[in-house]
Amino acid sequence: MSDILLTLDEVQELATECLQANGCDLENATAVANTLRAAERDNCASHGIFRLPGYIASLRSGKVNGKASPLIRPLSSSVIQVDGCGGYAPLALQKGKPALQEATRENGIAALALINVHHFAALWAEVEPIATSGLVTMAFTTYKPAVVPYGAKGPLFGTNPMCFGWPRGDKPPMVFDQASAAMARGDVMIAARDGETLPLGVGVDSKGLSTTDPSSILEGGALLPFGGHKGSAIALMIELLVAGLTGQDFSFEAAHNDNNDGGPPVGGEVMIAIDPDKFGDSDGWLAHAEMLFEKYSAMEGTRLPGDRRYDARAQSEIEGVSIPASLHETCLSFLN
Amino acid sequence: MSDILLTLDEVQELATECLQANGCDLENATAVANTLRAAERDNCASHGIFRLPGYIASLRSGKVNGKASPLIRPLSSSVIQVDGCGGYAPLALQKGKPALQEATRENGIAALALINVHHFAALWAEVEPIATSGLVTMAFTTYKPAVVPYGAKGPLFGTNPMCFGWPRGDKPPMVFDQASAAMARGDVMIAARDGETLPLGVGVDSKGLSTTDPSSILEGGALLPFGGHKGSAIALMIELLVAGLTGQDFSFEAAHNDNNDGGPPVGGEVMIAIDPDKFGDSDGWLAHAEMLFEKYSAMEGTRLPGDRRYDARAQSEIEGVSIPASLHETCLSFLN
Repeated sequence: MSDILLTLDEVQELATECLQANGCDLENATAVANTLRAAERDNCASHGIFRLPGYIASLRSGKVNGKASPLIRPLSSSVIQVDGCGGYAPLALQKGKPALQEATRENGIAALALINVHHFAALWAEVEPIATSGLVTMAFTTYKPAVVPYGAKGPLFGTNPMCFGWPRGDKPPMVFDQASAAMARGDVMIAARDGETLPLGVGVDSKGLSTTDPSSILEGGALLPFGGHKGSAIALMIELLVAGLTGQDFSFEAAHNDNNDGGPPVGGEVMIAIDPDKFGDSDGWLAHAEMLFEKYSAMEGTRLPGDRRYDARAQSEIEGVSIPASLHETCLSFLN
Repeated sequence: MSDILLTLDEVQELATECLQANGCDLENATAVANTLRAAERDNCASHGIFRLPGYIASLRSGKVNGKASPLIRPLSSSVIQVDGCGGYAPLALQKGKPALQEATRENGIAALALINVHHFAALWAEVEPIATSGLVTMAFTTYKPAVVPYGAKGPLFGTNPMCFGWPRGDKPPMVFDQASAAMARGDVMIAARDGETLPLGVGVDSKGLSTTDPSSILEGGALLPFGGHKGSAIALMIELLVAGLTGQDFSFEAAHNDNNDGGPPVGGEVMIAIDPDKFGDSDGWLAHAEMLFEKYSAMEGTRLPGDRRYDARAQSEIEGVSIPASLHETCLSFLN
C-alpha cells in the first residue's frame, strides 16, 4: 500500500476541514484536529487520522453534536464537572482544564468529571499539557465492551485506558497511557488492516477461545486484559472511577445505547490532578524524581514510558508523517 | 509441619503481647495487631503472624519506634500529612483517617501523605474501613528494590502494591490489593518456606535469568512485574506517587538506608479518597455500580476481587485459624 507524506500542518488542516465539512464548528474541529495531529506527530497511528472516518461517521449519523458548547459546573471545591453537551471530549477538556489547574493549585488535589462526551482520542495527548504545567495527572476512560474479565469468556469492560503524567520541569513530562487490554483495540485494528497475526494472549474469538487472528478478535471476539487478574481488576476499577462516579454509562451500557456508527459512544472521563508543591516536598520533589529517572535509565534494556513518542515527535516535526494513500483518499471524500 | 489452631482473639492477644514485650506501647501494639489479626482472619498468611518476626526484629534493632505518637499536619485543604515519627504505619493511618474522611467529605477528593512510617501490613486492611465508611479509596506504597523494570535484569522498584476500594452500602466494599510484582513477595516467601516451585514469569535469579526457585528469587534475584511493560509502568507510577510526592525514600534509596534487620524500612504511603456523593451522581451511584457487579458476577468463571477474603473471614470467625507450630513457637519466644 502506498503512503502519502504530509506535514503536521497539513494533517491538522485536513482533519479540521473534514470535521467542519461534516458539522463541526471551528472550535470543536480544531480541538479534535489537535489530538489527531498529536497522535500522527508521535507516531501513534491508531489514534491519528486512522480515526477520522469514525469521527465523520458519528457526525453524519447525528450522534455527536459538532457544535457543542461545554458547560462547567463545580460540584465541590475540588471536583469540577464538565458537561460536554454531546460533543467530542477534546473541547470539553480544553474548557475544563483551567478550572482543574486552579482547584489543584488551591487544594493540592482535584478532579475533573467529564460527562456527555464522546471520547475517541489518546489520553496521553490530554494529560501531557497538564503535566507540562507542573501537575501530576491521572486520567481514565471507558468505552464499549471489548475486554474479557479474568476467568470469563466474553467481554464486559471497555479497553479502559489509564494514563499517568509526571512533570519534569524543563524536560517534557513522563507520560504513560496504557489500555487495560493486553493490546490497544486501535493496534488490533491496525494489525487487521495490515493482515498481521497477533501473539496468543491478546484476545479470544466469538466462542471465548484464544486466537491469533485480529479480525476474529474484532468481529465477535474480545481482548484479554493485560497481566491476568491484575489487569482485569484495573479495568474494573476504571469502570467504577469513570462511569460509577460520574453516572455515565458503564461500557456494557454504552453498547446498548450506542448506534454503532463506528464513532465513539457517549460517556464519561475522569482526571485527577495533584500539585507536587503541596504534598510535603515542595523544594525537593523535582530533583528527587530525576534521581529515580536517572537510576532507571542507567539500567541496560530500559526505556522511560513515553520516550518513544518524544523521539518520533522530534523526527516528524522535521520530516512530516506518512498516511496510507487509501486513508488519505477516504479523508478527501469527506470534503465533498 | 504441624499447625496450631488459634481463635482470632488469641491471634490478636499473641501479637499484642509480643509487640509490647519488645518495645511497643499498647496503642502501637494494638494497631499492628489489628492488621495481623485481619490478615489471619482473611487467610492472607503472607501478611499475618508470618510477619511478626520481622516486626520484632525491627523493634529489637531499634530501627522502629514502638512508642511513636504520629503528628497530623494539613498541607492544604485536601492534603493531610501524617508524620509517623518512625513508628509503624497502622497507628499513623488510624490517627490520620478522620482528617482524610473530613477533607474528602468537604472537598470531594483528598489525600493522605504518610511519612516516616514503617509499612509491613496489607493495604486492603487499611483501605477497607475507609471504603466501608462510604468513600472510594486508593492506596499505594513502596518498599525496597524487589521488582525488575521491564527490559532490565535487576530490581529497582519495590513490590509496590496498589489498592482500590469501592463502597457498596450495606455490603462489604469491593477491595482489591495487588502488588506490581507478578507475585507478592510474601507469597514467594511462603513458597520458599514450604519448598514449592513457582511458574516461570514470576522472577529472576541473581544473574537476571528466569527461575522457578523461590529461594533464588529471594536471595539475590528479583521479581518480574505483572503484565510486562504495563505492570512495570504502574510500579514506576507508585514510586513517584509515594516517594516522589512525599519526599520519602524511593525503594532504591530505602535499600541503602535500611539496616536490613528483616523488618520494614522507613518510607511513605499515599492514600487518595473520593466522595461519590460529590461527583455528579449522588442519588444514583450506589445502585448503578451494583448493576455492574451483578453483570460481572453473572459471567461464568468470574469472581469479584476480595470475595475470597470475605469467604475466608466468615469461616475463620467461627473456626479460628491455623498457624504453623514452628512459627507459633518462635512467637512465644518473643515473650521472654
